[in-house]
Amino acid sequence: MTTTEAHGGHGPYGYSKNKADHLKRLRRIEGQARGLQRMVEEDVYCIDILTQVSATTKALQSFALALLEEHLAHCVAAAVEEGGTAVNDKVTEAMAAISRLLRS
Amino acid sequence: MTTTEAHGGHGPYGYSKNKADHLKRLRRIEGQARGLQRMVEEDVYCIDILTQVSATTKALQSFALALLEEHLAHCVAAAVEEGGTAVNDKVTEAMAAISRLLRS
Amino acid sequence: MTTTEAHGGHGPYGYSKNKADHLKRLRRIEGQARGLQRMVEEDVYCIDILTQVSATTKALQSFALALLEEHLAHCVAAAVEEGGTAVNDKVTEAMAAISRLLRS
Amino acid sequence: MTTTEAHGGHGPYGYSKNKADHLKRLRRIEGQARGLQRMVEEDVYCIDILTQVSATTKALQSFALALLEEHLAHCVAAAVEEGGTAVNDKVTEAMAAISRLLRS
Repeated sequence: MTTTEAHGGHGPYGYSKNKADHLKRLRRIEGQARGLQRMVEEDVYCIDILTQVSATTKALQSFALALLEEHLAHCVAAAVEEGGTAVNDKVTEAMAAISRLLRS
Repeated sequence: MTTTEAHGGHGPYGYSKNKADHLKRLRRIEGQARGLQRMVEEDVYCIDILTQVSATTKALQSFALALLEEHLAHCVAAAVEEGGTAVNDKVTEAMAAISRLLRS
Repeated sequence: MTTTEAHGGHGPYGYSKNKADHLKRLRRIEGQARGLQRMVEEDVYCIDILTQVSATTKALQSFALALLEEHLAHCVAAAVEEGGTAVNDKVTEAMAAISRLLRS
Repeated sequence: MTTTEAHGGHGPYGYSKNKADHLKRLRRIEGQARGLQRMVEEDVYCIDILTQVSATTKALQSFALALLEEHLAHCVAAAVEEGGTAVNDKVTEAMAAISRLLRS
C-alpha cells in the first residue's frame, strides 16, 4: 500500500495550488533526460555528460525541496492542529523522506 | 567552449562500447520523470512523489558512476600513457566533475 | 546575528531532552576525526581513509536528522500552534537548513 | 583485511607529501566536532547547530576530494603504468570509494 492509499487517497494537497510550476519543472527535467540520451548517441565527451547529470540532479532536488516545503506547511501543520499522535506520525514520515533525499 | 570541443570533438570514448546500456538507463530515467508528472497531475500524496524523486536521483547517480568508471579506465588512463601534463589536466577535470556530483 | 539570538536566545529546545545521546554521538564523531589524523600520520592507504571519511559523514548526517526531527516536532509544531506568520517563517528556516544538508 | 594490508602495507602514498595540509584540515574538523558539542551543551537553537553540521560535512568532503585527487594522480596512474589488470582493479576500487562518498 502506498502512503497515498494509507493517507486516504489522492489530494488535492498543499502542492496542488502550484501544480503548473511543478509540472513545468518536471517537463524540463524530462527534457534534460532526453538531452542526456542525445549526448550519449552523439559520443559527446564524458565530462560534458557528467556536467549535464549534475544539472539534472540539481533540478530534481529543487523540485523535491519545493514539494517538501509545501508538505511541511500544509500536511504536517494540519497534523499539528489535529493533535494527538498525528503530528509524530507525520514528522516521522517526513523525516524518512528527507533521509532518502539525503542519501540518494 | 564545452570540454567536448576543447577535447577535440566527439568520440567515440570509453563509454561508447556500452552505449546500449547507457541509453536504456536514460530512457528509464526519462520515464521516471514522466511518471513524476503523472503523480503531480493526479494529486498523489507528497511523500510518494518524494520517494519517486529519490529513486530517479539514484538512477541518475548510477548512470554517472558507470560513465565515470569508463572515463577513468580509458580517457584518464590514456592521458597517463601519453605522459607530460596530460594526466594532471585529466585528473583535475575528473575531480571537478566528481565534486559537482557530490554537491548536486 | 545567529538564529539563536534572532530566536530569543538559548533554549532548552526540543532536542535538549536527548542531550546525552546527542553528546555521545558527537564525541564519537570527534573520535573519528582524530582517527583520520592518525591514519594520515601513519601513511595508511588512501582508500581506507576515504572509507573512514564516508563513515564520519554518515554519523554527522544521522546526528543532523535526529536534531531536525526534534526541531520539526517541537519548534515547528509550536509555531503552528502559535498561528499567524510564525509557521511560514519556521518552515522557510527549516527548509534552508535541509537544503544546506542536501548540498553539503 | 583492510585495503592497506591488501595493498602491501603503509605508504608513503601520493598524499603523504601534503601531510601537513591534510592534518591541519583534520584538526579543524575535530575542532568543529567539539564546537558542536558545546552548542548542544549550551542549548543553542537547532538551526544554528544544523548550519554547523553542514559546514563540518563540507570540510570533510573537501578533505576527501583532495585525497582522492592525489590517489588518482599517483596510485591509479602508477597502476596504468604497471599495465595488466592493475588499472581495472584500481579504478574499481576508486569507484567504490567515490560511490560511498556520493551516498554518505
